[in-house]
This record gives sequence, C-alpha cells and structure tokens, in this order.
Amino acid sequence: MFFVSDYGRTDEFVGVVHAVLRRLAPHARVIDLTHDVPAFDVRAGAATLARALPYLGPGVVLAVVDPGVGGPRRGVVLEAAPRRLEAEGPRWFVGPDNGLLTPALDPGSPITAVSLPPSPEGSATFDGRDVFAPAAAALCAGAAPADLGSPVDPSELCRLPERVVEPGTDETGRHRLTTEVTWVDHFGNVQLAGAADLVPLSVTSVEVGVSTPIPRVARVGTFGDLRPGEAGLLSDANSCLALVVNRGSAAEHFGLAAGSTVELVW
Amino acid sequence: MFFVSDYGRTDEFVGVVHAVLRRLAPHARVIDLTHDVPAFDVRAGAATLARALPYLGPGVVLAVVDPGVGGPRRGVVLEAAPRRLEAEGPRWFVGPDNGLLTPALDPGSPITAVSLPPSPEGSATFDGRDVFAPAAAALCAGAAPADLGSPVDPSELCRLPERVVEPGTDETGRHRLTTEVTWVDHFGNVQLAGAADLVPLSVTSVEVGVSTPIPRVARVGTFGDLRPGEAGLLSDANSCLALVVNRGSAAEHFGLAAGSTVELVW
Amino acid sequence: MFFVSDYGRTDEFVGVVHAVLRRLAPHARVIDLTHDVPAFDVRAGAATLARALPYLGPGVVLAVVDPGVGGPRRGVVLEAAPRRLEAEGPRWFVGPDNGLLTPALDPGSPITAVSLPPSPEGSATFDGRDVFAPAAAALCAGAAPADLGSPVDPSELCRLPERVVEPGTDETGRHRLTTEVTWVDHFGNVQLAGAADLVPLSVTSVEVGVSTPIPRVARVGTFGDLRPGEAGLLSDANSCLALVVNRGSAAEHFGLAAGSTVELVW
Repeated sequence: MFFVSDYGRTDEFVGVVHAVLRRLAPHARVIDLTHDVPAFDVRAGAATLARALPYLGPGVVLAVVDPGVGGPRRGVVLEAAPRRLEAEGPRWFVGPDNGLLTPALDPGSPITAVSLPPSPEGSATFDGRDVFAPAAAALCAGAAPADLGSPVDPSELCRLPERVVEPGTDETGRHRLTTEVTWVDHFGNVQLAGAADLVPLSVTSVEVGVSTPIPRVARVGTFGDLRPGEAGLLSDANSCLALVVNRGSAAEHFGLAAGSTVELVW
Repeated sequence: MFFVSDYGRTDEFVGVVHAVLRRLAPHARVIDLTHDVPAFDVRAGAATLARALPYLGPGVVLAVVDPGVGGPRRGVVLEAAPRRLEAEGPRWFVGPDNGLLTPALDPGSPITAVSLPPSPEGSATFDGRDVFAPAAAALCAGAAPADLGSPVDPSELCRLPERVVEPGTDETGRHRLTTEVTWVDHFGNVQLAGAADLVPLSVTSVEVGVSTPIPRVARVGTFGDLRPGEAGLLSDANSCLALVVNRGSAAEHFGLAAGSTVELVW
Repeated sequence: MFFVSDYGRTDEFVGVVHAVLRRLAPHARVIDLTHDVPAFDVRAGAATLARALPYLGPGVVLAVVDPGVGGPRRGVVLEAAPRRLEAEGPRWFVGPDNGLLTPALDPGSPITAVSLPPSPEGSATFDGRDVFAPAAAALCAGAAPADLGSPVDPSELCRLPERVVEPGTDETGRHRLTTEVTWVDHFGNVQLAGAADLVPLSVTSVEVGVSTPIPRVARVGTFGDLRPGEAGLLSDANSCLALVVNRGSAAEHFGLAAGSTVELVW
C-alpha cells in the first residue's frame, strides 16, 4: 500500500492511520510517499501522485488531501485498468472525490468506481482514519470495490483541469512555450508542466520570461553541464522541463512558486 | 510496537532506535506515531499518546519525552490491565516516569510497574537507544516486566495534573465552560480539554471568551456546516470540543496556543 | 537496509525510493536514518552515518547526499571488511563517491569497491531512484558487488578531510583543545570533534573560547548534573565532547553552528 496526505508529521494522524491499517490488514506493508503536501492543496497532492505512480508497482493507493471533509464530497474507491505503460502499477485508489485521484483516471482506460458510505455520526472530521483506511485495508485483505460501496459512473468523477502548456511561435518566428510551474521541490528545482521534448536538447539556450531584463539560460542535459550556481533548463527525473540551478535554488533565483506561469522563448 | 518521541526527524535518533529494536526484536514492526512532540513537552507527549491510544491495537508503546534524562527520574515499564473499552489496546508502556505515560494509568485499572536500571556509565544522554528500546524489544521478544527491573508501587508513579474543565452557570443564568487548549494541530484546529457533550449539538451558538469584543460562533456537527473561512465549535475526531475554521487555522483566527484558557458561554 | 539522504520529506523522493526497493527486493526491510541532512552537505551526511554506524547491525547502507549528481563523480558500492569493534555492522555501502561513505573506510580494513554504471540517458537527476536503489536492492537479493560494476582501487576513493582536533598546552601551562563543531542536534546540543577522554571527567571546569568574556562551564557526567538552563561540557551518546544546556539549546547559548571552531582551556 502507498499512503500520501497533507496530514503533516507533527501530529499523530499518520501514525494512527498506520495503526488502523495494521489492525485491519496485518500483512499489508505501507510505504509513505509524503505527508507534507501543502494543507488542502488538492492539485499539489494530485501532482505528487502523478509523479510517483510510474515507480510504485502493484498495490493500493490511499490518498487524503481533503478540504471538504465532513461536507458533501463523497469518498471513492477507483479500480484502474491495468496501466498501459506500467503493467504492474497500483490497481486501487482510495480517497476523496475532489480531483486528488485524477492521476488514476488514465485517459482511455476503463475504470470502475464506487462511492463509500460517509463516516459514522459524530466522527466526521478524520475520514482518513474512519473511512479511507478501513476501505484500503479491506482491499488489501481481498475485498472487491463492489463490497465497499455503491457504483459510480466514472465519467462523473471529479477531475482537475489540465495544466497550462501552450506551445507556439511569436511574431518574429521564434518558438514560444507558455507553461505553468507544477512543483518546487525541496532543493528549489522548478518543474514545469511541459514535457521535456517540447524544448529539444538541440536548442542551445532559452529566454525565461519571468522578469525584466529577460534572463537567458542554457538548455542542458543534466546538472553536471552547469557550473555551480549557474541556472539552466533540463529534463528532470519525471521527463518534464525544469528550471534548475546547480547546487542552488532555481525557485529563489527566478522568484517562482507552484502555480506561476513561465514563458520560454528560443 | 508504537513509538512516540520529541526526537525530531532532522537527526538520526529515530533511525538508530529503530535499528536497535530490529537487532533485538527482529520480528517486531514499529509504527511511528510522531517524533515532533515539542522538545521536552511532557504534557504534549502525554496528550498525543492519549489521543492515539484507542486506535492502536495490541502491542508495546515506547514513549520518550524526557527533559530529565541523566537525572534522578527513573525509567519504567508499565503493564496495563486489559483496557475496558478497547479490549485489545497496548499492554505495555516503556518510558520515563515523568507523567508521559499517564494515559496508561486508566483510572481504576490494576497495573503492574517496574523500574528500569539506569543506562550504563558514560552513555547517560540517550536512554531511548540504551535503556528504553532494549526494554521494549525484550517485551516484544516475550520477556515479562518483572524480568526487566524492580517492582514499583503504581500509586507512586508520576501523574500529570488534570486539565482545566470547569462547567458552570454565570450570574445571568447562562451556561459557562472554562477549559484549556490541549492541542493545536497541523491545520490550526484548536482542541479543548472539555468533552464534546459539554456543549450539546442542540446549542445554536457560543461566545468564545478570548478577546474583546467577544466573538460568537456556531456550534456545528462538522466542517461541512461552515462556509470556507468561517469559525465554529464542533466535536472533533477524539470527541473533544474543538474550535475550527473551515479550510483555515482557528489558532490564528482566535490567537490561541496549547495551554491557553478559553471561556465558552451560551 | 538503512537509508540516509538529504531528500527531505516534503516531496515523494523518499517514498519513491522505498517503492523501487520493494519492487526489486520485496523482503528487504528499510530503516530510514534521516532524510533531513542539510541539502548538499556531504560532511554532515558522513557525520550522521558515522554516528549511527555502531548501532545498525548487519545490512546494506544506502546513502545519498549528492551535489554532483549528473556530473563526473561516480557511484560506488563498497564492501567493508567485518568491522573490528562491531562484528555485525553493515557490510555494503551504496552511494556517490564524494566522501559521504568515508565512515565505511575503516582505517586498516581491507575493502572492496566497484564503480556503478551511470544512470540511463535522460534520467540523470535522480540517481537515488535510478542507480543507487537498484544496486542496494540487488545486494539485498544476493548479488555480489562484482556483479554490479567495475572494480575500483579503494585507495582512490574520495575521503573527507579529518576534522580539526588539536590538543596542546598554552604558554602558562594550561591544557588547550582546539576542535570543530561537527553537529548541532534537534535539541541544540553542540557535538565537538574531540573524543570525550580528551577532557577527562576529573577536570572541574573549562573555559569555552567562543566569545569575550570567555565563559567557563562545568565538566559534568550528564545532564542531571546541571541545573535547568545551566551550560556544561559532557561526553555525549557518541562518546564525543559536547557543549550542552540542561533543557535548553547550547547552540543558541554559545552562538555555535556546525563547522564553528571552539577552543577549550583548563
């Protein structure tokens, strides 16, 4: 099982969910992806899950970033079709139906979904413990989604809007890519929504339209092609474009945060 | 086994304790509750343990928040009677005798206690590694508390004072509850020491005596009954009264921290 | 297996490496030492590993603090001789050849080393996931280092310089020890590079040459010998000299950080 949330680590939330999982599915082994998704940030949680998904292997994903806990949003279990690229990726996803599980909705794949019953009266604030963990444990113990709730039309599941990725050409014939910052990691690397091949490695350098005068950086293959402290554009570990600074923080260097828009020109 | 401490995660303390546990009790599986109890804050550690206890299931609890390490306070192993409500709760508790283990001292339950020998000469600063983990591992491996130390009279164990919970009526006949903030969680929710039924759900709204003019908030069932940004009073996931803000921080909203006193009037 | 890095916990890096390890070595159990080594701080990572090493027991160490990822530094697997003092310490160490693994290079011990092939084209920024975790998993699954790469002359492995530890006598015949701060822990305790027996417990007090006027503190056995808030010098849990404050932060008290130089006189 894989567990991702915005619970943080300062409280016992994560530990209590682990305890519930162990009581109900003693043989399951739980890998924590991260519990430091920014509080209530469903997009960041979905992005985290999307980046991790190709590496997880089989199992159940338990995901909780849930600003609507106790409200009308429903909890769901999704059963993904075998993933096309990663034949052994996770099969089940448990969490709120608020877009967090969008990465499970591989376009074109058939999918089964059920809606979970709400938490029992008087404990409507910790669905991770009371609703989602029991469902995830039941799947580990052999239950089918249909045992856990009522069928839902997958086309009615909440999906997040696509990220901004707009390639084009400007009036002088130069290439232009308008794209969104999806993630600033622990080291300050700035991941963009655009796939790495939108700016091929044959491009020498790009303008990064985030401030005036417009900085220009090298399009490189890896950190080792940059001097310490130098900024560049590369294909990161998720095959996305990323602005980086060798041994430094590109987020600080360019003044960027998740959600910022960046215009690359070359 | 369940492990809670104020060791933080920036150092290798937690990892080293896990390594010691694995060497001495290879089959034990250790669930970390949290290691971010505020440094030296025994009350906060005891509150964390008390909140988690009903969900843990059987096993050994290893708890270390220990401002008196190397001083005269003793280390102890407590064997709780089977818990009345949770028949399969943890049976053994290992840690310093400074009140941290108070939640194990279920009123009215018989309990066995032993005092652990101090750490060996010259390593008196890391009892988690040198004293408590070996004792917890021994219990997992089948030892009885009596094998690990000298009997102690349970009535002489250190207990923390009770939290402030004073219900009453004011001169105009209104209900009044003076209570203490026990915990501010990662999301800024403010848990009060009073049980939720002290302000029944039939109450429409309460005054929260923390500032002037005195704010009034709705007594609600769950977050979903509040608009985003709206404050309210509800029964939280531990059946305690809690001041909350839907998708926001009640601690910031009201200017409250653990230990603050709050007066509710309705 | 034991895993230490500077990946932090806010992203999914640690979780993804765990997932890769589980796919490739399903039976391995991984203990996280810490993932909060300061970013790119190879010395701090090596110090963390050195402190933990005597307590780990057998297994593989996976260590990643890697400012040179994607550059010319190579990845290595080291096979240590059985450790002299801890007969069952870790046998294999996997990580970058940048000095991080220095603690595995026990002086005088024979050691085998191999150089790992670089990460596949286009994924040169996450060697933990793509190079080091697969190698560590292979060792857990029974591979020999020679199966994983090309032999390397151990004398050519990168080693960190020794820490400053200069004992001596000043012009008036007093003892003097110039030494370096190796670590400030979560509680603010200040570990020095010098071994504890350089200032024997028979010494009553020492001057701590870090500010004017020069403070003088007691040389004590443990925290319990100090009043709350009082500073002292003791032998810490790694048998190193450490400046401490009972229930307080010695780093704040003395204005010290890792890398600072301290002069003790008595």
